[in-house]
Amino acid sequence: MNADSFQQLDKVIHEKNRMAIMSLLAASQELSFTDIRESLSMTDGNLITHIRTLQKAGYVAVSKSFKDRRPLTTCRLTTEGIDAFSGYVDLLEGIVKQARAAK
Amino acid sequence: MNADSFQQLDKVIHEKNRMAIMSLLAASQELSFTDIRESLSMTDGNLITHIRTLQKAGYVAVSKSFKDRRPLTTCRLTTEGIDAFSGYVDLLEGIVKQARAAK
Repeated sequence: MNADSFQQLDKVIHEKNRMAIMSLLAASQELSFTDIRESLSMTDGNLITHIRTLQKAGYVAVSKSFKDRRPLTTCRLTTEGIDAFSGYVDLLEGIVKQARAAK
Repeated sequence: MNADSFQQLDKVIHEKNRMAIMSLLAASQELSFTDIRESLSMTDGNLITHIRTLQKAGYVAVSKSFKDRRPLTTCRLTTEGIDAFSGYVDLLEGIVKQARAAK
């Protein structure tokens, strides 16, 4: 077993709510805060906290604008976020393969 | 994307050190505390804490005996632990597949 794989798992992405947000954003160009919140059944506060962590890591970019005179917050993965998520998924895939081989 | 998959990830196993311990034990019948500690380059204190969490969840059984008059602590997965790890890996696999499809 390659013990390093586990240690290399990106802490920012490994938390399961953030894993869900990153996966959702990886599947779309851009999503509104409301879409993410509803897709993942998260509370406002919880989502804000996790988005902030992803933003600080440089993985998610947040834009504020207006739509029909109402404020609209949208999120998308940055290039760094796309790379980090891709590396994370590669590691997970390796871990799943190791686990399958162990059974 | 299936948002439930992320919420269903077993918290006890998802922490990366415990993921490493469970993977290691899944690959062996039984391992000594020393073997696990050395394979994963963990400190005594850290390993004890994580093994205790896995024991409390009913996933790992710990036995104490003597070998050459020296105390020997060994760990193995319980049936419940094997099932939980298997379910966890199935979920991870699904998440990896979703992520691959999203790219």
